[in-house]
Amino acid sequence: MDKYWSTGIADIRPYMPGEQPAIAGLVKLNTNENPFPPSPAALEAIRHHANEDLRLYPDPDSTRLREAFAGVHGIAPECVFAGNSSDEVLAHAFLGLLKHASPVLFPDITYSFYPVYCYLYGIAFETVPLDAQFGVRIGDYARANGGIVLPNPNAPTGRALARGDIRRLLENNRESVVLVDEAYVDFGAESAIPLVEEFPNLLVTQTLSKSRSLAGLRVGFAVGQPGLLQALERVKGSFNSYPLDRLAIAGGTAALQDQAHFEHTRREVIAIREWLAAQLTRLGFEVVPSQANFLFAAHASHAGEGLLRLLRERRILVRHFAAPRIDRFLRITIGTRAQCELLVAALEDILQTC
Amino acid sequence: MDKYWSTGIADIRPYMPGEQPAIAGLVKLNTNENPFPPSPAALEAIRHHANEDLRLYPDPDSTRLREAFAGVHGIAPECVFAGNSSDEVLAHAFLGLLKHASPVLFPDITYSFYPVYCYLYGIAFETVPLDAQFGVRIGDYARANGGIVLPNPNAPTGRALARGDIRRLLENNRESVVLVDEAYVDFGAESAIPLVEEFPNLLVTQTLSKSRSLAGLRVGFAVGQPGLLQALERVKGSFNSYPLDRLAIAGGTAALQDQAHFEHTRREVIAIREWLAAQLTRLGFEVVPSQANFLFAAHASHAGEGLLRLLRERRILVRHFAAPRIDRFLRITIGTRAQCELLVAALEDILQTC
Repeated sequence: MDKYWSTGIADIRPYMPGEQPAIAGLVKLNTNENPFPPSPAALEAIRHHANEDLRLYPDPDSTRLREAFAGVHGIAPECVFAGNSSDEVLAHAFLGLLKHASPVLFPDITYSFYPVYCYLYGIAFETVPLDAQFGVRIGDYARANGGIVLPNPNAPTGRALARGDIRRLLENNRESVVLVDEAYVDFGAESAIPLVEEFPNLLVTQTLSKSRSLAGLRVGFAVGQPGLLQALERVKGSFNSYPLDRLAIAGGTAALQDQAHFEHTRREVIAIREWLAAQLTRLGFEVVPSQANFLFAAHASHAGEGLLRLLRERRILVRHFAAPRIDRFLRITIGTRAQCELLVAALEDILQTC
Repeated sequence: MDKYWSTGIADIRPYMPGEQPAIAGLVKLNTNENPFPPSPAALEAIRHHANEDLRLYPDPDSTRLREAFAGVHGIAPECVFAGNSSDEVLAHAFLGLLKHASPVLFPDITYSFYPVYCYLYGIAFETVPLDAQFGVRIGDYARANGGIVLPNPNAPTGRALARGDIRRLLENNRESVVLVDEAYVDFGAESAIPLVEEFPNLLVTQTLSKSRSLAGLRVGFAVGQPGLLQALERVKGSFNSYPLDRLAIAGGTAALQDQAHFEHTRREVIAIREWLAAQLTRLGFEVVPSQANFLFAAHASHAGEGLLRLLRERRILVRHFAAPRIDRFLRITIGTRAQCELLVAALEDILQTC
């Protein structure tokens, strides 16, 4: 470490994103990107806004974008907060809503950015073990806490909770914030957004990165009652008043207005996922039931890390987490049908050889 | 405040950006935007990248963009950090480099976001008075500190320090970080970037918002030795791994590569500034010598707030800060020559009437 760093900065533990190699022709199934292109209307809107108005600051409140998101979900724009990716929105939520004397609770196996925010902001946390099938047991969260964070579906497992489970959690946890991270919700899970009206302590986050095929545009949202969102506004206004550039606002708005493209592509992803799950099962994998755009799968007789390496030699990237309880597993993003067929053929080849 | 907010969030004090009214035909001289359009090459690059690759995450390291910035300044890309606006870069610098037992020092009259970051992150700070002519006295910073932040040129005054003054400060302050915020440097001040090689505690920030006419794209930079930048990388990697979207990377890179457009437009801004300064002096204003794309001016017999209101009635927006020592002043962004002529005519009218 450098002598000039702030106190404590040597102890934070940055997130490790999946690799983004600049190698052509890779079958890239490692970072949960959508294999289908974004809405053509989004691309057209971006081109239209690539004009001299870029000399001007963007709308600090991303009003049009928030209105478009609100329109999709039938809620008021005042209940929508927008940020530069849901990672930024989550960071603001951790700092603005989850820093209390009691620890934040989240599953032991989940999005690995949650503890990273806690280290950054000095937030106490405790992890709650998933059950043996990687399911969340709602009852395990019935204890003193400074907030509860649940991704739904969970990552990297893909398992989802029903809205009724979230409701049950909220009914028994009214004194702290419940943050439901719905990055992958559109691939088959139920959103908790309809519960926001009833529960003033519910915050739901979403992103355009996955189901709207816009990981490259960095647009995320939080939904909650205005009193809750005000904490996020305060953090945003103390960090960067204009988090979304003019092109992200324009492209994101147009993407949200193209429901036909959204419905078509998300259904395709779901259909390919179900096909791939069946193929992996046939090849001897244990496949966790997924409502996300990825599968979490472990082979009965081959370690995850070895398979990752052998697939990489065949120019296919998947993701492996060297963590307790899940190091047998691979997380495989749903690609196009052709990409998934290449994966299946490669696995057949590997499993025959080894 | 809401009962669910984090401890302390009610006490932070968000920044108040200049208003961004959606009214057509306003002469908008209130937020230091460049009156000239961005490089046509930047717009073309954005249109070119409005393609289906937006489904993929951007390069988390913004490599091409950092290389382009490094190329302009003749430094190594390893000495360049990029973020979603220089406000974000500054936020990361405050958290990563300026949080120590001793207070951070910055001028009493300066960019009003600096204390905002301190409140957000719980950083102790002390302000150091500018002299009666709004000049920075380097000797006043020779005391125990957890870092020194100097904008050069300063805002809202426009006054600049020579590189030799910055060097003198660095020679006498080797134990903590010196952050030189060069948001406006291209309009006539000397950059401290050539000093980075010599001083491992120097961090210089810049932005494409002002001199590259890209306030709407949100691109900022920090320059420093790699050991210093590593603190910013750690904060970034604990906050949002992909801060810049694909379009900002593409457009920013192309803008940096178009030095001819940059030189032409910045010289125009400087020429208009000098003309406007002479006009304001003729009308009885005290005009602070400016090396920025704005002027800070006070009329001998008219209060700043009243002039602001009368200009607004004539559809001309300027900025006023209701703060000690500067409430007589208006901060006037340099617009086109035509816009500045409208301003002068309006002021002539107002001053004759009142």
